[in-house]
Amino acid sequence: MSDFPKFVQLNEEGPREGFQIEKGPISTERKVELIDMLSETGLSQIQIVSFVNPKRVPGMADAEEVVKRFTPKKGVRYTGLWLNDKGFERAIGTGRLDISGSISLTASEKFLQRNQQRSMAENLADQGKMILLYKKHGVTVDRGSIMAAFGCNFEGDIPVPRILDLIQNMLDLAEEHGLMLKTISLADTMAWATPLSIKRMVAAVRERFPNLRISLHLHDTRGMGIANAYAGLEMGVDSFDCTVAGLGGCPFAAHNGAAGNVCTEDLVFMLQEMGIETGVNLEVLLEAATLAEAIVGHPLPGSVKVGGSLNKLRAQLLH
Amino acid sequence: MSDFPKFVQLNEEGPREGFQIEKGPISTERKVELIDMLSETGLSQIQIVSFVNPKRVPGMADAEEVVKRFTPKKGVRYTGLWLNDKGFERAIGTGRLDISGSISLTASEKFLQRNQQRSMAENLADQGKMILLYKKHGVTVDRGSIMAAFGCNFEGDIPVPRILDLIQNMLDLAEEHGLMLKTISLADTMAWATPLSIKRMVAAVRERFPNLRISLHLHDTRGMGIANAYAGLEMGVDSFDCTVAGLGGCPFAAHNGAAGNVCTEDLVFMLQEMGIETGVNLEVLLEAATLAEAIVGHPLPGSVKVGGSLNKLRAQLLH
Repeated sequence: MSDFPKFVQLNEEGPREGFQIEKGPISTERKVELIDMLSETGLSQIQIVSFVNPKRVPGMADAEEVVKRFTPKKGVRYTGLWLNDKGFERAIGTGRLDISGSISLTASEKFLQRNQQRSMAENLADQGKMILLYKKHGVTVDRGSIMAAFGCNFEGDIPVPRILDLIQNMLDLAEEHGLMLKTISLADTMAWATPLSIKRMVAAVRERFPNLRISLHLHDTRGMGIANAYAGLEMGVDSFDCTVAGLGGCPFAAHNGAAGNVCTEDLVFMLQEMGIETGVNLEVLLEAATLAEAIVGHPLPGSVKVGGSLNKLRAQLLH
Repeated sequence: MSDFPKFVQLNEEGPREGFQIEKGPISTERKVELIDMLSETGLSQIQIVSFVNPKRVPGMADAEEVVKRFTPKKGVRYTGLWLNDKGFERAIGTGRLDISGSISLTASEKFLQRNQQRSMAENLADQGKMILLYKKHGVTVDRGSIMAAFGCNFEGDIPVPRILDLIQNMLDLAEEHGLMLKTISLADTMAWATPLSIKRMVAAVRERFPNLRISLHLHDTRGMGIANAYAGLEMGVDSFDCTVAGLGGCPFAAHNGAAGNVCTEDLVFMLQEMGIETGVNLEVLLEAATLAEAIVGHPLPGSVKVGGSLNKLRAQLLH
């Protein structure tokens, strides 16, 4: 019926997205507890912290301590997020994370100017400097990402050709440094996408760059997260970022509408019901989602943790 | 890219689903306030009450009073729900509702036995009696509906051939009475469907009964509502039940996970963004969703009422 992948790679970002934005305070111990539980779910990639300015993001002030204390499980990649050279040096300094570099652009010039006081050209030049830093440390760079790829609250809709141009810019920059990108991540940072725009964008990117793997980072602010992921699946997309229980977004609006990422266990539920492998044990993941909710101390948006998995029901019906 | 309809018919059921299940008490006045506001949204069909046993559903004890007090708007069909002859007589007795009959079956025998102490055959016979009653009152019967069409918490998955058989049963029963069904409503009463099962079921029904219009009634208990609606759209489905703000489901779990119907304004948002007409003004509908939340006094699941419409943002960006 469609070009569904057989296996989907899920990149769990709950600990980073959640602990970064929750008003907290959440103890280092509890953060580690959630990370260690997520390690038991079968997820193969977990972003556990961000190395950002602790004055601006106090919830991440203990990033090094979290990285020091969690218990890595074999076969799981544990990653961190950074936005500049300082953050990268902190990440690599922990000695316990899986470090790879990426070229990161933003599709909206207005958003860039507003948030980083930089033009698109300046941002691209900065990315070149980051590549030099990655190379100096012998770090792989095989991924590009584009923020606000589907629309921007300050600029409006993002036309497909602009994304194609930005990808070309990234590939050119990579080539200048003797690098080859394998994956391009398209982020619907401000939740402008609908299933149809996902399909149109993915179709255009695949047509122009058939050798690039596409990954989607979908925000659920307007309730389209799972539908957008489904549209991606129909186009053969086999890599998604997600957050357990739908962590992230505004903590005080969490019970009103999911402003975080697409919820990991809801996505796993859909994939499992569609016969697509993820390597994840949904029942254990649902326990992790319940733990995440207990840790933040307020309701989180995921639905399956309330509605329950069907496989569990099916097993009960057999007895 | 797909067989998308140009226009989608939305059947708003928020007042009925919501006021039926909320612990309340909600005053007749406030119920009427929401109905009258929904009349201003452009929705062309609104189910406003159910005529059920007031001892079992106290929130609907004032059904007649609600029907008496609301202000009908030209061009809008106002309907009610009933489950038996008594309820039907009450509905028709109001003299203010758009009355049409339907044949209603359930795909799960275990669910039927548990909830209505009837076998599938007994249920079909009961439907024959209801048809006689409808004919006696000169009421149109051109619709069939199947509850638990995708799965049942007491029986498990529902195989596609069973649905095809049940539709055939309904068509045969209708024919015995000289009637012809135009629409078949498939209800995912217990939220077992995923986009793929929606597509498979709709494809099978369309292939076997190409002249029947398919309508979907989707519950959002496992967060699949919007994705399932999108899958339906791809198969050309052009009629959906929905509830403003996601009214319905368990009131105390409403902020934890959407157990009600697919949310009207989230669905309208997706349709509008995809260029599919609904006749609904999203901005007015969002006001009605906010009103619904104020009336029930607790957060309701819809996302766009929190995230905001994009057309409003686009208009602001132009200034």
